[in-house]
Formats: sequence, C-alpha cells, structure tokens
Amino acid sequence: MSSNGAAPTAGQVARTAKETFDASQLLDSSERHTALLALKQALTDAKEEILQANRQDIEAAREQVAAGKMSSSLLKRLDLQSSADKYDSMLQGILDVDSLPDPTGQVTYARKLDEGLDLYRVTCPIGVLLVIFEARPEVIVNITALAIKSGNAAILKGGKESIHTQNVMTRVIQSALSTTSLPPAYIQTVSSRSEIASLLSQDRYIDLVIPRGSNSLVRSIQNGTRIPVMGHADGLCAVFVDESAVEKKAINVVVDSKTTYTAACNAAETLLIHDSLLSSLWPRLASALLDANIQLRCDPSTLSALSSSIFSHPSFSTLVKPSTDEDYETEFLDLILAVKAVPSCAAAISHINNHSSHHTDAIVTEDEANARAFCRGIDSAGVYVNASTRFADGFRYGFGTEVGVSTGKTHARGPVGLEGLVIYKYQIKSTAAEGHGTAVFGSGEGKKPFLHTPLPLDKPAY
Amino acid sequence: MSSNGAAPTAGQVARTAKETFDASQLLDSSERHTALLALKQALTDAKEEILQANRQDIEAAREQVAAGKMSSSLLKRLDLQSSADKYDSMLQGILDVDSLPDPTGQVTYARKLDEGLDLYRVTCPIGVLLVIFEARPEVIVNITALAIKSGNAAILKGGKESIHTQNVMTRVIQSALSTTSLPPAYIQTVSSRSEIASLLSQDRYIDLVIPRGSNSLVRSIQNGTRIPVMGHADGLCAVFVDESAVEKKAINVVVDSKTTYTAACNAAETLLIHDSLLSSLWPRLASALLDANIQLRCDPSTLSALSSSIFSHPSFSTLVKPSTDEDYETEFLDLILAVKAVPSCAAAISHINNHSSHHTDAIVTEDEANARAFCRGIDSAGVYVNASTRFADGFRYGFGTEVGVSTGKTHARGPVGLEGLVIYKYQIKSTAAEGHGTAVFGSGEGKKPFLHTPLPLDKPAY
Repeated sequence: MSSNGAAPTAGQVARTAKETFDASQLLDSSERHTALLALKQALTDAKEEILQANRQDIEAAREQVAAGKMSSSLLKRLDLQSSADKYDSMLQGILDVDSLPDPTGQVTYARKLDEGLDLYRVTCPIGVLLVIFEARPEVIVNITALAIKSGNAAILKGGKESIHTQNVMTRVIQSALSTTSLPPAYIQTVSSRSEIASLLSQDRYIDLVIPRGSNSLVRSIQNGTRIPVMGHADGLCAVFVDESAVEKKAINVVVDSKTTYTAACNAAETLLIHDSLLSSLWPRLASALLDANIQLRCDPSTLSALSSSIFSHPSFSTLVKPSTDEDYETEFLDLILAVKAVPSCAAAISHINNHSSHHTDAIVTEDEANARAFCRGIDSAGVYVNASTRFADGFRYGFGTEVGVSTGKTHARGPVGLEGLVIYKYQIKSTAAEGHGTAVFGSGEGKKPFLHTPLPLDKPAY
Repeated sequence: MSSNGAAPTAGQVARTAKETFDASQLLDSSERHTALLALKQALTDAKEEILQANRQDIEAAREQVAAGKMSSSLLKRLDLQSSADKYDSMLQGILDVDSLPDPTGQVTYARKLDEGLDLYRVTCPIGVLLVIFEARPEVIVNITALAIKSGNAAILKGGKESIHTQNVMTRVIQSALSTTSLPPAYIQTVSSRSEIASLLSQDRYIDLVIPRGSNSLVRSIQNGTRIPVMGHADGLCAVFVDESAVEKKAINVVVDSKTTYTAACNAAETLLIHDSLLSSLWPRLASALLDANIQLRCDPSTLSALSSSIFSHPSFSTLVKPSTDEDYETEFLDLILAVKAVPSCAAAISHINNHSSHHTDAIVTEDEANARAFCRGIDSAGVYVNASTRFADGFRYGFGTEVGVSTGKTHARGPVGLEGLVIYKYQIKSTAAEGHGTAVFGSGEGKKPFLHTPLPLDKPAY
C-alpha cells in the first residue's frame, strides 16, 4: 500500500523489497529477534481488529458458498476464529520461530589459502522471497516470522478471499516493523492476481518464488518465470508391502499413511503389494482399510484376491473397484487408494520412480537388502522403512516449522525449514602487507602453491 | 548415437538418461571409482585417434576463420594438441576428480524421533544433468569425470565446431563404460543445436541444466525451461579502493584483478575509488594500470584528477577516456576498466549491489568497520578484503575442480565443485515391533512427543 493511495506497480514493490533487503544486511541479527517480539506484541494488541476483518471475509465467503461459487473447505481455511486457540497458536508460532538457532552467519567451509589469506563460506539470506499462497490468512504471519528470522525480505501474495484480513494484518505488521530497525517494507503484500505475472518478471529483484497451492498454480508459475521456484507440484506418495513384511507393521503403516489426514501431501495415494501376499496379508490389510472407509481401486490381481476372500465385508461392494492406469498417477487427496500387485522389490522401485511425485515413499519389510535397495533406488525426498509417509513434515523432522515441502531436486528437498531460506557467500580476508594477488600462485618457477589448510568453523571473518 | 543409425529424439535421450540414473543408484560408489579408472585408460589408449579427429575439426575451423565466419579465439579453444601437455592434463584431471572425497552418502542431519525411529538426511546425486557448453572439447572429459564421481547421469551438448572430436570421445567414453557396472548411456552427447529446445522441455527426466557459455545463451536457456538452471550470466566484478587503503595493496589487488586474465569471469571490470584519494593514490594506481596497457574509462572526477596529474604518461592520450553510464554495466572481458569516484563505503556498496553481477567484489581497506560493512552489505557470491577478485575459482578455493561459477542465489553459489552436484534425501528407519505410524504423536491425551535427539552423523541408515 503506498501512502498516496495509488497501488504501487509490481516493479516498484520488487525494487523496494530489494532495497530493504540490501539495507537490512548491515543490521546485527539481534535486530531480527527484536522485530519478532514487536511483531508478536502488535498482533496480540490488534487481535480484535483482525478478527473483525476476518469476519468480513467469512461473511463474503458464506455468500459465495451459498451461491455455489466457493467450496466450504476454502471457507473453513479462511476462518481464524472458529477454533478457540487458532489465533493464539499463530502468535505462539512467532515465538517458536524466534527461539530457533540463527540460520545465518554459520561458517560451513574455511581454508587458509596462504599465509595471511583466509577463505570462509558463511551462510546468509537469499534476498527477496515471493511467496504465493491460497486462502489461509495465518500464513502471512508464519511466512513473515520465517522471513525475518532468516533475514530475507518478502513479498506475499495471498488469496483474494482473505483480502480484509490481509489488509489489516499487513498494516499491523508494517506498523510493528516501523518501531524496529527493519524497514516497514521488509514485508509487503499484494492482493491482485493480475500482479503475479508482473512480479514473476522481476528477476532482477526477486530471488526465489515459493508457491504454496494447487498443482496447476505451481506449474504455471514454473512456466512463467526465470526466477528459481521452490515448490511441490504433487504429493503422490506410495507404500510398498514387501514379501517379508510383518502383517501388523503393514496394517499400521498403510492405514496411518492413508487415513490420518487424507488431504495432506504426505498421505499415501498408491499401495503396492508383493504377489506372494495376495491371499494372506492383503485381504486382512484390505479389511482394515475398508473399516476406515477407504475406497480401494484395485488392479486385476489384487481385485480377484479380494473377490475370493473378503467379498462378505459390509463395504466390499461399495468401496472395492477396479483401477484404471490413471489412478496410479492421481493425487486423490481423498478416501481413495490405488492398489497394485508387483512381483518384486525391483518392480516396486521401478513403478514408484516412474509414477510417484518424488515426495515420500515407504517400504514395509523385514529384509535389510530390500530396505537398502528401496532407500537407495527410490529417487524421492523421503524414503522410509516401516514408517508412515505422514512423517514427512518439518515439525516432525525437528525443524520447528516449515515453509513447505520441496519435490525439486536442487537447493532444498523434502520439508523445508529455515535452512532452505539461506544460501552462502565466500569471504576472503588478506592480512598480508601487500594484500593478495593471484599472479604469484602456480606451479612454475617462483610460483607458490595454495595451502588449503582447514580453519576452525567457529566464526566468519566479518 | 543409437545402434541403427537414426539419431534418437530428445525425449528418448532424456528418458534413457533417467533410466540409467535410476539403475545406477543401487551400485556401490566403489563402482564409480572403477569407471573413472576405465575412462582414463580408454582415453589414454585412444589418444591418437582423438587427436586425429581434433585435427579434422581444426582444419574445418581454419577455413571458417579464413572466411571470416569464426573467431581465432574460438579456433584456439578447439585445439587439443597445440600445447604438449593439454591432452595429458585432461587425463590427469580424471585422476584428480577420482581422488576427491565421495560427495554422496554423507549424513548431514540425524535425529532419533522416537524409540526405534531414526531420521537421516543423506547426500545423494541430483539425477540427470544437461550440460551445454561451447567449443572446448576437453570439457566433455571434465564433465564426464565430475558426473561419474557425483553419481549423476549426464547429457552433454557441445559446440558443432568440435563435432569430430566429440563423436570419437563419446564413442571411447561409452565403450569404456560398457566394461564397467555403469551403463554406457550414463554419459550421452547430442550435437545439433536444434535439440536444445526439445531437451529443455524434458523436465520429467532432466533435473538440472548447467549452461557454460555466453550471457545470451544462459539467459535464453533460463527463459526456455522450467528445469532449474545453474549458470552464471555475467562476471561483472568490482574493486573498491576505500579511503583508508594502503597504496601498495591497492595497486597489487587492482592490477592483479584486472590484468592476470582479462577474458575470465572473475576479472575486475569496474574500479570504484574514494573521493579523498583522487589526487594522491589514484594517479599512481592509474599509472600502474596504464603501464599494463589497460584502457581507463573514467567518470568526470577521476578523469579530471588524471588530467591534472599524469597527463604526461606516454599512454595517457590513447588509454584514458571519459566513461558512459553503460560502461558500469558492461562485462568488457578485455583490457578496459570503468572507473568511478564515490564519496563513501556506503556509496560503493550501493553502486556494486545495483550494477555488479553478484559474482565477486573486493574492497581495499585498513578499516575493519568498512571491511565488515562491505562483506555483509555486498550481495555477491564472493566478498574479498585486500585480495584480488581472481581468487574466485574452484581450484583456488580447494575444491579440486569446478563445474562453473554460479551467480544464482539458490542451491550453489560461487565456484561450484562436487558439492554443487549433489542434493540429499531423508531416510527414516523404524525398528519398532509394529512399525511407526504418526497417529500416536501429538500433545493430547494418550499422545507422545517427538524426541528429536541428535544422532551421530557417521553413517546413513542404508
């Protein structure tokens, strides 16, 4: 929001973000701690005002839902007040992020190159983040806390459904920042969808795009920018029940992977089962899944095994169906599981590498060789042995929080915490009387070699 | 090359690369060592045949140069035989890469999540690399060695000028691989420029594009793909001579940065000099640069300072010129330096952040506060104090070798060695009797918390 009322252009927003980032680099990281505390206090003080704005968004959304123009699940995600502690949890999240170790200023490589010439690789913020997300307004606060903690400036683009909540939150956040050493425009929000394309062309100022949303949103962003994109386009996770699987582990892992939160990206969508288990373990596993109201879309082998064994299960006729090829490429996010028999662990690995989204896949096995083959052979961010795919989560991994789950293969993979929001720079410090040129190094006469002696990693040169 | 003589399509090349990558994941890393030795032996045995093919390329290039259709520097880069040890250095490079520590299988994070539930973050290859480079045929061997060492499959696209050398080298490399456990198609080459666009659309199979070449090549690739690109589009490096600079350090650092290899991306293109030095240090530094035959493109302040002091230098009239705004945005790669006076360290930082390519920038100073402000405030991959920008190089940093220098802000920054060719995956291993589901964790009644106890980083679970 510019003070004269005219909305700034995408170019202005991006350039301002880069300027505030550059300016913030000279601040001590303790200033970021101060800013997080100010943020928490301001949002505590503004609770009623923000909840009031949120009620306006909910009112408008209810009309949309009534008119059939919005899903009720979207309405639910908008809502900051239905659960008593939702707002307070959001505030507690700021303190949780604040208490994590500083991800910046860490030395990850250090070498003495020559007498009086030291090299340090030091972690530092990436720069300007563009975070694009859908309805949930508390994401603004989560991302703001992560951006401040990691030293990145951020431009946030939320859904238009939460516009009133966003506007008040943004004003409160910028007003809180104005009482600190960080510039108020360190965190900016934009709300019009048409601005995304303009922002995506600002590769001179924006360093990383983090889309949190639908598959089609993520792919259209990847197609429309040369800024690096960190996102996950799909969560198509599989569980493979190996020949040597113990039944109670198989039932525990598969049922937990499928049923604990079907709308999550780390929920299982495909079950692969070894041929040798079709008449033994498989029908009992299938019963447990039917008990949990899961629709089973089965290939011919797994279907005929059930037809001859558990056709008397009360849900058999409603929940057991033949599968199509498409089912093995589908992220259902629902009470549906695609099931397929495979003749070997190698066949399971091949199916998963060709069909999964490289998010998280699990094997149930007692065979160490197959466990090893699965963990090495599956090209996914998470490879689990006898554990539910649902463990793929930043909090569960011990990161405190996450910005998302990356299914990319570079920079950061799997649940992404503060470490995924930093990069590094190389510092070189010469203390020699004439400084250091390169011309004196080499292998010829009168030249000297590099030392490359390791240095302690305890602190950077500057 | 397919065996029936018809060139495979880009989609076939990419899918084959992914298949060979997937298959190679089950091999022990010792097999990669064996493959590097086989590669070195085969290239030793085929030396005469490869040099013969190289002579064909040189012959064709000479005709192009004579017809004014190719630069003589391109011809020179093609040439594998003019220098006696060029071929042998290329072979030695394979052994050097082989002797580096294995970048894969390293544990970088490990936590006990629960009794019997361990989490490991383990480095692993990225997958399929597409490396696009210009004339120098020895790059095929360098990249092949790096790809094998890091466990990545690679598709190489060289310049059409070295087509004969490339074809023989590729045949020798694939034939050497066929005697090892790695599939021959682990390293593939394509030679037609028209194939690049098709390959860049294979984001299902190709994980990382590494362009080594001109600015326009890199940017057109970034615009034309949603595969992550690791490249440097520019090397616009600056040296700032601060108010407190010692003269001999300033002369050493600036002359070395500018003159030791003007065509390199880490050579200085811009000199910023503090106002207070215009009538003292600056004319003597300028004389040293003129002695080295450097053209100085000066802003009004630095120009008038020279006009009144060293106009009698024999090169003054030919080498000292007024600058234009464009000169401060230009990567000359030549004996030309853009010069500008600035009133403060803060102004130097601001100029560099707005004009440099975020590659490597240096300050000459005796003031620790300014050194610190420069190192923290400059948003570049390298920030040096009293040292030449020419130190920005993988070998000089102690990495043994490099794939390139990244000016990106994610994944890898600065000189990129083997570490930049790996990512990681998370392994979870449950040894509990019922395996591990997530439903039992949480804060409510009957739920348990995560332990998050650090584990030793000595080896992965699998």
